[in-house]
Formats: sequence, structure tokens, C-alpha cells
Amino acid sequence: MNAEIIAIGSEMLTPTRVDTNSLWLTDQLNKLGVEVVSKTIVGDDRERLTATLSASISRSDIILITGGLGPTEDDLTRECVATATGRCMSFRPELLQAIADRFASMKKSMAENNRRQAYLIDGADALDNPNGTAPGQFLELGGPKAIVLLPGPPREMKPMYANHIEPRLKAMLPPLFIASVWYRVAGMGESDLDQLIAPVYTKYPHVVTTVLAKPGDVEVHLRARAATQNAADAELAAVAPKIRELLGERVYSEDGATLEASVGRMLKSRGATLGVAESCTGGMLGERITAVPGSSAYFKGGFLTYSNEMKTTLLGVPAELIAEHTEVSEPVAKAMAEGARERIGCTWALSVTGYAGPDGGTEANPVGTVFIGLAGPEGTQARRFFTIPDRHRVRTIASTTALDWLRKSLS
Amino acid sequence: MNAEIIAIGSEMLTPTRVDTNSLWLTDQLNKLGVEVVSKTIVGDDRERLTATLSASISRSDIILITGGLGPTEDDLTRECVATATGRCMSFRPELLQAIADRFASMKKSMAENNRRQAYLIDGADALDNPNGTAPGQFLELGGPKAIVLLPGPPREMKPMYANHIEPRLKAMLPPLFIASVWYRVAGMGESDLDQLIAPVYTKYPHVVTTVLAKPGDVEVHLRARAATQNAADAELAAVAPKIRELLGERVYSEDGATLEASVGRMLKSRGATLGVAESCTGGMLGERITAVPGSSAYFKGGFLTYSNEMKTTLLGVPAELIAEHTEVSEPVAKAMAEGARERIGCTWALSVTGYAGPDGGTEANPVGTVFIGLAGPEGTQARRFFTIPDRHRVRTIASTTALDWLRKSLS
Repeated sequence: MNAEIIAIGSEMLTPTRVDTNSLWLTDQLNKLGVEVVSKTIVGDDRERLTATLSASISRSDIILITGGLGPTEDDLTRECVATATGRCMSFRPELLQAIADRFASMKKSMAENNRRQAYLIDGADALDNPNGTAPGQFLELGGPKAIVLLPGPPREMKPMYANHIEPRLKAMLPPLFIASVWYRVAGMGESDLDQLIAPVYTKYPHVVTTVLAKPGDVEVHLRARAATQNAADAELAAVAPKIRELLGERVYSEDGATLEASVGRMLKSRGATLGVAESCTGGMLGERITAVPGSSAYFKGGFLTYSNEMKTTLLGVPAELIAEHTEVSEPVAKAMAEGARERIGCTWALSVTGYAGPDGGTEANPVGTVFIGLAGPEGTQARRFFTIPDRHRVRTIASTTALDWLRKSLS
Repeated sequence: MNAEIIAIGSEMLTPTRVDTNSLWLTDQLNKLGVEVVSKTIVGDDRERLTATLSASISRSDIILITGGLGPTEDDLTRECVATATGRCMSFRPELLQAIADRFASMKKSMAENNRRQAYLIDGADALDNPNGTAPGQFLELGGPKAIVLLPGPPREMKPMYANHIEPRLKAMLPPLFIASVWYRVAGMGESDLDQLIAPVYTKYPHVVTTVLAKPGDVEVHLRARAATQNAADAELAAVAPKIRELLGERVYSEDGATLEASVGRMLKSRGATLGVAESCTGGMLGERITAVPGSSAYFKGGFLTYSNEMKTTLLGVPAELIAEHTEVSEPVAKAMAEGARERIGCTWALSVTGYAGPDGGTEANPVGTVFIGLAGPEGTQARRFFTIPDRHRVRTIASTTALDWLRKSLS
């Protein structure tokens, strides 16, 4: 079965408001094996809202609607769902009594317009809301199909979903089991990766394959769903090893761990330590390494040498070496890594020096050129790479490339 | 005129993915006086996508579509918009050439499937994409009505909107003038700030006031819209100075500049230089300072001293001082800042040492405690602060607090 989520309210259509309810509900539905196929945010406009609801109801199995259950004229969800399903609403004295009781318990007086919240769509179950005034509504139609009206405030919506909606949806759904794996890969672009693995995954349409990309970092998610766990596992097993083989040593994690966490695990298990010497990344490499809780077990420290003078003073890179080769060069990257390894006394040291832009660069090494150095127990190496000259992208890919090189050296 | 925004891609329907493009586009459209009446996210499903597009095109004036312009089989936007508008697509050799040139400039080979990106909907203008392979498309229909196809990655989408879409939409719309200002503030929570300024801005409902919060950093945006620039300026002038006065010296920029850019400008104008010594932030402070283009004019370098040993070896913090006071203490923060200032030879040095968690901390200084040191021409000081113990939040607020302290010292 599939689901749509509709958030109602003009205040949800401002430049700063994020519909966090739909993210939380998506997670809940995915756990039941229900895929969210569409999300909509629509303002408080009767005609537009009714049209949106009618279209959703006609094409999807589960419609979760949040918001628009308040007492004001702008709160149109109840009426528009009734119109879209061709049903009437009835006034329910017991619902009004519950609202009145809630106001009384807060020692507030109930306004006349709260009466609007006591109307129930014919055939729907009213859902108790201990955290607010608006009752929810659950309407099951043949098909089976479910239309759910939930209040907008997360602190009212979430308990109502957990206590009333999830049990009802579970009863409607066939038992469903999920098998999934995700491969995270560094050093490969999204389209190159897709071209590599598409010939395989397109042959297995029952396994949902998602490719998610960030600069220098791609995640491939495979998910199989079936009526038994064995069947889901078997579906996944038919395709996952083939994808895994194609990706080869590029895969740095299979459990969602970040590159920095994966490298951290490897260092820790080997009892090895790490230091850094950063120029163009200015701290990003250290920041990423130490974003991992417990990284003090293997990360000792580093040097930010943003000027040539600092490369010489702090890391001992000879001024003549910089004068001869420029600061963005293989010899300087090597000398930075060696200087850091020696001063920190760590097993491995990574260095980064490059032109992040927008200014700088030479004809031979334009903006986007980065040299990475790696000093370790068996010596020091450096390598050059080039990426499109966007400052944030250059720095992100530089730190990713450095970490991934260390990972491969540790494997 | 009104607008709808449609984001396309199954990856946008996961529990963690926020459609930030639509927030940015809403802001841009609001500046043109266009209201967003609906936002939709729909997966890579031909039938559902075509139905969604058809409905939107039939009821709204401007349809902005992001995503689904890539080279893979899943990228259906071009085809589905063509179907929904009853138009054909044509292969355009000049578009393929532009894509091929882009690959060549990156010294990469173009894949065969990139050919899909060279199809243009009949009647549409192709929009140049200097930041990616997918050209955008702008289709104007009678009404007037505009259908816009934009790439999904924000770094491709935003310049394309600014350079190609905004001028075209402006030509379609009645003239509207805007006056706006934004005050960025560090060191104050969102609700405290709102409580301070709400009594003023609620009196001026024609000026749209938006409060945006990130950890340790709040932005107040005021915007007036009118049929002439003079009228918009006058509306803004009635309220902005009152808000500015209430915020006082907490305001670090009035033009949208980040805290690190504001501090950078101040350092540069004074001919002063900066260095850092980071423990719990692990490089985040340096990373933020150097995220600003041209920061090499004032940022010299720094030390990442993640272990106590490194604090002693690299910065000269006496081991006895650490033993006596612990590494998260005022004397150690001071000694770190002084050690960095001396070794780097900079005008100012900032240090950060704290418990970012989840482990660590003492009874007196639990996780969330951070000491910041500032060494400058007139001596060294340190201060303590405490925030809720979330690793990323502690590190972010620590780097913000350090930068804001330097800003105040420079004012």
C-alpha cells in the first residue's frame, strides 16, 4: 500500500517553515512497509484544498492529513474531506463535552467557535486528543483505503498517531517484512556510479534502489519488501551482492556509518592514531574527524597552516621548498604531512593544500586543484586532484578524498 | 499571480530529507509579490508525476519544478511536463555540445545517457547551467502562465533562478518594490529575542517580520512591499530603527553577512591577524573562519589539540596546570590562547576547550560546559558557558560564542 501526506495551513507556505510532521510520519509509515509517494502542503483555501484532497483520495491508499482542525473559519479540513468523500458531517455532543472538559481542566472558558471541532465526518471514528482541543478522525473506506485527520501541532499529532492510527493501519495492512542494506561510496560521482550499477538494479524492480549524492560522497540504498522475512532477505540477496561487487573497494560502509566514522573504527581497531595538517580546508578535516563521538581514542591533533609562514614555522616545511614549488604542490603536501606526523607523534598524518577559490591558483594548478599528503609507517606519499572551483565543494571533496585515501591505506 | 512549487524525486520522500529549495524559492517569489499557494513533493513515477503536473498547470499561474533533470531513467521531469502540456520534445545538438564541453572542462568523459539532458520541450527556452550538466527550461504559456524546470542541486538551481527565471517572471508581473533589512544576532535564543521585539513588530502588520534561528544564531528579517520604492522605504523606516535599538550591540550584521565574515571584515580593516587553539571543536572554528573567501588576509593558522599531551607539546600548556584544574578549565583555556598567540605571532588568538559529549564531563563541569579563551594585545581572558549537551550543538555554539566575543572585543 502507498500513502500521501497532506499538511494544511497557509502558515506552512512561508520561506522558513519546514513541515517536520511529514518527515516523522514518513518514518512511521516506512516502518509499516508503506511507501510515501507524495507530500503536499496546501493553504487555507476551500476550493484548492478540496481539489487536492479529491485527487489524493482517488489515487492513494492512505491519506494522512495534518492541520486545519482548529476552531476558526480558516480551519477547513473537516469540511473539505467531507466534500471530497461525498459524506455529511454530524454534530456530536460527546465531542463537544470532551472539549469543554479540557477547557475546564485548564480553567479557561470555551469559545463558541470550538463547537466547530465537534463535527464528525459520517462513518469516521473520533480520536481522543489529550494534548489539545481538536479530536482526530479516522475514516476507513473500502479498497481498503484510510483517510486520517490529525492535528498540526507535533505534540498533539505524534501521540495520536502512535495510540490510534498505527494500530488501525497495522490491522489494515498485510504483514510485511523489510530487508535493506546501504552502501556508502567515496570518490565517485553520482552519474558514474549510476551508470555502473543501473544495468544490475534495473533488472530487479521489486528491490527499491535509491541513489543519494553529496559532493564526493554517494549512498546507494537497496530495500526489499515481502510477506515473510525470508522472502525479503532472498529478494535482497539476489541483487545486493552483485551491486556490492561492482562497487568494490570504493564502499566505505554498509551500515550507514559516515566516512569519518568508518575510518575512526579502523584506526581504533588497529590501535593507530591520526593527526592532520590543513591549509585550504582550514579545519574542516579535523572538524569532520572529531564530529564522531569517541574520536579522542585515535585523533591526537593537528595544525592549521593557512599562510606559508605558518607552514614553515609550525610544520618545518622549508621556505625554499615553497619558493621552488609553490605551496600547492606535491613536495609541500608531503613535507606538511611529515612535519605533522613528527610533531604530533601519530601513526598517520594527512595534509591538505590547495586552491579553494575564488581567488588564487596558477596556470598549471588553477582554483580547484588540491594536493593531499599521507605520512605513515611506510613512508610519505602525495597526490593531486582537481574539482570544479566552488569553495565549499573544493574543501568538502578535499577532506573526503583525504579520509578515503587513509581508509584505503588501512584496508 | 500565484505559484506552486513541485519538487521531484523519490529521494525527497525519505524521513530525513527537507526540501530546502522550496523554502528559498518561496522567499524569492514573495519578493516579487507572488504568493505560494501549494507545495508538492512527488516521487519518480511517470503516471503520478504527470497527474500532479497537469493539476497544477490547470489551476496556478507559475509552476516552479525542481529536480528530475538528471541523465538517468528515473529523471522524468522533461517528459512528464511535455505530456502534461501536450507538447513534443526535440533533441538539441547545441545543448548536448554544452554538456560535452562541461565534461571536457572537468577532464571527464561524458556518458551516453547524458544525451537525455539535451531534449527541449517545444516552445521552451533552454537555460544555461554553468554549475551542472542539466540545462533548465522556461515555458511561457498564454494566460500568462509560466512553467519552469530547474535542476535539484541548490548550487545549480539558485544561480539559474537568479540569472534566468527572476528576470523573466518580473517581465510578466506588475511592478512591486521592496525595502528590507536583516539583523543577525548571536548569543540570544529565539524565544527570548521574539519576546523582546514582538511588542514592536506586531504593531506593523504590513511589514513582514521573520525570525530564523540556528543554534546560537538568530536572524530577524523585516520586509515591506509597495507599489513605489519610496512607499516601501517609508513603511520599513517606521519600524526597523525601533527593532534595531532593542537588539543593540548584539547585532553583528545588517546585510546578511555571517558572523565569521563580519569578524573577518573587522580584523582586516584594523590590519589585525587571528589564530586559534581548538580542543572540543576539533577544527570547526578554523573551518568557519576560512569558509570566508579572502580570509587568508587575517587568518594565519591554528592548533588542534585534541589530547592533553598535544595541549602541552604543541601549545606549551603546563602538564601540571592540566593536572590541577583539568583540561576544561579557565586556566587551561587561557594558556591555550596564549600559547597559540605566541607561536603563531598573531594579534588575537581564540581557544576552545569543553565537553561536547556524549561522554566526558565532571560533576562541576558536565557535558555541555565549554571554556573559551581570548588572548590579545591587552592580555588574556577566559569565560565559561554551558549549553544543552548535544555534540553538534555544543561545538556550534562554542565556535559562535568565541567569534562573537572577538567581535565585541574589536568593536
